[in-house]
Amino acid sequence: MSGNTFGKLFTVTTFGESHGAALGCIIDGCPPGLELSEADMQRDLDRRKPGTSRHTTQRREADEVRILSGVFEGRTTGTPIGLLIENTDQRSKDYSKIAQQFRPAHADYTYTHKYGIRDYRGGGRSSARETAMRVAAGAVARKFLEQRLGIRIRGYLSQLGPISIEKLDWDQVHQNPFFCPDADKVPEMEAYMDALRKEGDSIGARINVVADGVPPGLGEPIFDRLDADLAHALMSINAVKGVEIGAGFESVTQKGTEHRDEMTPDGFLSNNAGGVLGGISSGQPIVASMALKPTSSLRLPGQGIDVDGNPVEVVTTGRHDPCVGIRATPIAEAMMAIVLMDHYLRHRGQNGDVSVDTPVLKQL
Amino acid sequence: MSGNTFGKLFTVTTFGESHGAALGCIIDGCPPGLELSEADMQRDLDRRKPGTSRHTTQRREADEVRILSGVFEGRTTGTPIGLLIENTDQRSKDYSKIAQQFRPAHADYTYTHKYGIRDYRGGGRSSARETAMRVAAGAVARKFLEQRLGIRIRGYLSQLGPISIEKLDWDQVHQNPFFCPDADKVPEMEAYMDALRKEGDSIGARINVVADGVPPGLGEPIFDRLDADLAHALMSINAVKGVEIGAGFESVTQKGTEHRDEMTPDGFLSNNAGGVLGGISSGQPIVASMALKPTSSLRLPGQGIDVDGNPVEVVTTGRHDPCVGIRATPIAEAMMAIVLMDHYLRHRGQNGDVSVDTPVLKQL
Amino acid sequence: MSGNTFGKLFTVTTFGESHGAALGCIIDGCPPGLELSEADMQRDLDRRKPGTSRHTTQRREADEVRILSGVFEGRTTGTPIGLLIENTDQRSKDYSKIAQQFRPAHADYTYTHKYGIRDYRGGGRSSARETAMRVAAGAVARKFLEQRLGIRIRGYLSQLGPISIEKLDWDQVHQNPFFCPDADKVPEMEAYMDALRKEGDSIGARINVVADGVPPGLGEPIFDRLDADLAHALMSINAVKGVEIGAGFESVTQKGTEHRDEMTPDGFLSNNAGGVLGGISSGQPIVASMALKPTSSLRLPGQGIDVDGNPVEVVTTGRHDPCVGIRATPIAEAMMAIVLMDHYLRHRGQNGDVSVDTPVLKQL
Amino acid sequence: MSGNTFGKLFTVTTFGESHGAALGCIIDGCPPGLELSEADMQRDLDRRKPGTSRHTTQRREADEVRILSGVFEGRTTGTPIGLLIENTDQRSKDYSKIAQQFRPAHADYTYTHKYGIRDYRGGGRSSARETAMRVAAGAVARKFLEQRLGIRIRGYLSQLGPISIEKLDWDQVHQNPFFCPDADKVPEMEAYMDALRKEGDSIGARINVVADGVPPGLGEPIFDRLDADLAHALMSINAVKGVEIGAGFESVTQKGTEHRDEMTPDGFLSNNAGGVLGGISSGQPIVASMALKPTSSLRLPGQGIDVDGNPVEVVTTGRHDPCVGIRATPIAEAMMAIVLMDHYLRHRGQNGDVSVDTPVLKQL
Repeated sequence: MSGNTFGKLFTVTTFGESHGAALGCIIDGCPPGLELSEADMQRDLDRRKPGTSRHTTQRREADEVRILSGVFEGRTTGTPIGLLIENTDQRSKDYSKIAQQFRPAHADYTYTHKYGIRDYRGGGRSSARETAMRVAAGAVARKFLEQRLGIRIRGYLSQLGPISIEKLDWDQVHQNPFFCPDADKVPEMEAYMDALRKEGDSIGARINVVADGVPPGLGEPIFDRLDADLAHALMSINAVKGVEIGAGFESVTQKGTEHRDEMTPDGFLSNNAGGVLGGISSGQPIVASMALKPTSSLRLPGQGIDVDGNPVEVVTTGRHDPCVGIRATPIAEAMMAIVLMDHYLRHRGQNGDVSVDTPVLKQL
Repeated sequence: MSGNTFGKLFTVTTFGESHGAALGCIIDGCPPGLELSEADMQRDLDRRKPGTSRHTTQRREADEVRILSGVFEGRTTGTPIGLLIENTDQRSKDYSKIAQQFRPAHADYTYTHKYGIRDYRGGGRSSARETAMRVAAGAVARKFLEQRLGIRIRGYLSQLGPISIEKLDWDQVHQNPFFCPDADKVPEMEAYMDALRKEGDSIGARINVVADGVPPGLGEPIFDRLDADLAHALMSINAVKGVEIGAGFESVTQKGTEHRDEMTPDGFLSNNAGGVLGGISSGQPIVASMALKPTSSLRLPGQGIDVDGNPVEVVTTGRHDPCVGIRATPIAEAMMAIVLMDHYLRHRGQNGDVSVDTPVLKQL
Repeated sequence: MSGNTFGKLFTVTTFGESHGAALGCIIDGCPPGLELSEADMQRDLDRRKPGTSRHTTQRREADEVRILSGVFEGRTTGTPIGLLIENTDQRSKDYSKIAQQFRPAHADYTYTHKYGIRDYRGGGRSSARETAMRVAAGAVARKFLEQRLGIRIRGYLSQLGPISIEKLDWDQVHQNPFFCPDADKVPEMEAYMDALRKEGDSIGARINVVADGVPPGLGEPIFDRLDADLAHALMSINAVKGVEIGAGFESVTQKGTEHRDEMTPDGFLSNNAGGVLGGISSGQPIVASMALKPTSSLRLPGQGIDVDGNPVEVVTTGRHDPCVGIRATPIAEAMMAIVLMDHYLRHRGQNGDVSVDTPVLKQL
Repeated sequence: MSGNTFGKLFTVTTFGESHGAALGCIIDGCPPGLELSEADMQRDLDRRKPGTSRHTTQRREADEVRILSGVFEGRTTGTPIGLLIENTDQRSKDYSKIAQQFRPAHADYTYTHKYGIRDYRGGGRSSARETAMRVAAGAVARKFLEQRLGIRIRGYLSQLGPISIEKLDWDQVHQNPFFCPDADKVPEMEAYMDALRKEGDSIGARINVVADGVPPGLGEPIFDRLDADLAHALMSINAVKGVEIGAGFESVTQKGTEHRDEMTPDGFLSNNAGGVLGGISSGQPIVASMALKPTSSLRLPGQGIDVDGNPVEVVTTGRHDPCVGIRATPIAEAMMAIVLMDHYLRHRGQNGDVSVDTPVLKQL
């Protein structure tokens, strides 16, 4: 109930603070028989890890994950999978100042109100460092979904502050440090980020995630709609302030005749629904988008208060991402993978397996 | 796991189909000692119920709720509260056509894939009629939150298709059939809806919800952030396609110096966060917004397929809301109330009670 | 978290007080496509219902159950099944005395400490009347298990106070009001109960339950072992004070060579395990036994206290079972059915379906 | 849903196999502000650990636990507590034989049916080695309960095979390797175990656990009664086959006038209830008892089958406890501590804090 677990049948429970000894997680409910090694997770961890370009934090973490249980002779056994990443670059610096301050837009003030105590080193539990374990767990889900159901989950950065992409070329996504699918926009993004870094400010971003090959039938139709669980999952990522499924907020100005995705024997004629109807997957691509706020840790001074309620000028030094959105694509993919995995198992529990070969409407 | 329950400590489990015998729900975990009668729920039910203006469906349902358990001598006892609303206007009509069709943008196709069977009368379980029980349950949460913590939850329609409100006058919200807080826009909305009805089309809408007086400290900081649970709750409402907290998608283009809500001893200087920092309430108003898609049931023909995969022209007759957003405000309020109630109890379980009188930062 | 729900995938949530308007429950997670009508539940409800012999309470309740949702054209749809039983014989009597007393061995004292308020009419929520809904829900599980997996669940009274059965003849179980499988013991039981009733005292009992045909593989091996969940389920029945699986407490004095159930190609050579090894079903019959304490409501005076802490002599009048164990057999069967059903769905979620036709060791 | 988590608000999720890299667990929901260090857990771990007398397995494990998160400056922060114990004495031996055999009374056969794969090294996940993490987690619960509520939880061995204790002297419990509270019986137990070891056989045992100082009001009255959750918790310990609360199976032959614990202003006059009425604690000591079966790993040959269904003679070599009950006392205490902790938080969530100073009936 303290919210460190995601998923109902495929559950991911994480622990760890930014500057603690280690991050870890337990994946429970993974089906047995899946081939799994650290390398399967390392690929995604490396995509998320800091310090791979000048546009992200320079903290150096190898983010090497160890499997401690649940895998035997190269395959999952159905028992819980324990994962561990040791923190290696948690610099010991002087935290006496930050310990006494509530920085604006950080969780300092709220953690203190909630718990009466907080681990202030590097943000403690509120640091996005926790998302490393989500990525590791997501990699397990992703592998199962690909192998068992042919599902492919891919994300990209669709907007970096004022710069929106104009085309979606999947092959470009991993050719630049932004997960940007529009090669033409990359130089603009580079220049924007360089200027921003000099300025000392930060910026928001938008990430899209798409799952192809999802069979129709996943999702529980009332409170745990597939889209509701996706919204939950994506909004639980640090800095996310908005989530859309399919047409999202554009639906507000759409008429019914425009929004409804008509169906013909050859398939759906559009995908305003984003692949979810009545909370259940339709066989079309699942399409979600999320907004990330700009990083709150800035060296430009801002007004805060100290723990006694006195005004203080807050200046954040140290290593920070000027745009948290840049590294968020693998995290969004991981969360979508976990949601789909969980719903696949939930579906199978109640209804038996999906008919992988059921002829369904062709996708656009 | 079949997703008919919302909440972890204050849980609401609903049942019932649009044209079945009755709708019902069980509220479990309600604190004992709360004064409660049917009238407390009826007020909100009446705000949601159909047929109160020409702009909503003409189905006539009294939506009279009965308390079957959990209340003794006018007070909750801490045991489960059973609620029941009998369906009274489920017209028996000929469903043979709809039984054979998958209508575009409806859940017909997905339910069939999921379960292999569906109750096609009036949409069955996928009908928004289910939300009546959410409103009833939300009224219980709302009453507790008001009495115990002084929390006030209010929503309004902020956009009806192309018409956006320009001012927020809470006193206006219940003076018109739209929950519109801007009296100047009401005639425009009336005209728009009248034209739309003639046309046979439908339109989307945007609803905002605000909770004032929420103490700092509510929300679990990783997966069950207060904003993540809100996103889950709101996205679980029929027709919702997008959710924002605070600045929402505007965060994408905000710089850090703009977005961060600075703090002074006199309070926060802005509320881009929407009252949630690090997943935990900050004491500022909780602000959420949601997008609703246009109704899918249209008398304008659309392309669908039948159960054998043949093309069919779908025309929906019967009684439908041309804008589901119009009746959605009380539902959004109810879901926010349930989320806050649940998180209050979760907080109290782990951390002991919130300090109602703790001096916190003043709200803007 | 308030404990009115049992099961994880096949969940049963009950509400209702002894003398309230109605009892109800929601079954969530039932697989779609199961033929179901009220008659399926009524059979078991009638076996549990009061007033069928002079040895049980004379309260007259038809215990007629209505299905309010989740069933369409005679089959379950996969959506929640709402069930309702109206209370019809909750005599309005004067409760002013009982309202002021804490009766010994009743829940009066503990409910008051927990909630600060209690519904004292007929025991309120603490009455065993609540178990009617368990029996109704269990009937659904039982039907599925029989039809889908060939599982048969049967219970019997194995001991009534000092009278133990000496043989197990399944055909006798429904030939007498005690669910006693040993016809020779029935006259003795009749005489014992008649004497007890005159005396004004009550007596304990022991019930055994057996499930045949359970495929190997059900049960989650650590905390949610099949036997641990069974212990939970049976101990949650009113008046139960002890639970055994297989050899139970006899295991204490058994040597390993005696206890271990040896295996040959022709099957297991004994069943001390009670059908569960390492928390997982072995394919042998699941065997459980439970102890029920004597009824606490006696007309023989006992020492209690009143709500102000003063001593009072408590005499319970009204209609009560002198041996709650007599009507407990269908309840124990129901709980075992729910546990097995839940574990079957849990197993299927993570591992795919059981191989119904897998050649397994023959059962003894 | 795979059952590796215990508790609803205070949750303990474990991972790890007998001969894997490490055991670990995550405690989620621990209240903030509790002083905690490894030493608090080590004390109980040392009581459980193997190799401390000739009567238990000679496997040498330091069982040194590391806190990886959730504790800052010596106090819990309210965030998840990650714990790790590296396995150090998992001898690499030849497992080729055991890999092909289903040993009687082991989980080999059932794991294989469930998962299609099993980690056969030392029993894998089915080994009681997993209980080390329960003891570590239980120590956290125990410390909180003692400090916050004055609850004391203590267990003892009440029967070793044919030898029953005749007196309960708490001071003796830690003066002998059996947790036996009756010093007079210890020589007999020593002799019995020495003979048994020579013989190559094993024996069952009975453990009792008692919690003093539990405030009235803990427990959820229907499915999650305090006694039902205790039964679940204790039955989930490896080798447990029976659980009793209070008078347990003796209730079967008790009359109501004998069983009911009468109340006077000076307190209850007996404790047949074992401290639980209507599923809720009464303020009396919580008393539970459990039966453990004899160890299944014997060097005396037994009949088993191999994975192809052929008969095999199974002889278990290696290091094993001839009576698993001997080391089970700390495990039973740990599980009771976790149950009480969880129910305290559950109670506080719904009902607010218990009144620690409420004048309640004196305990016997």
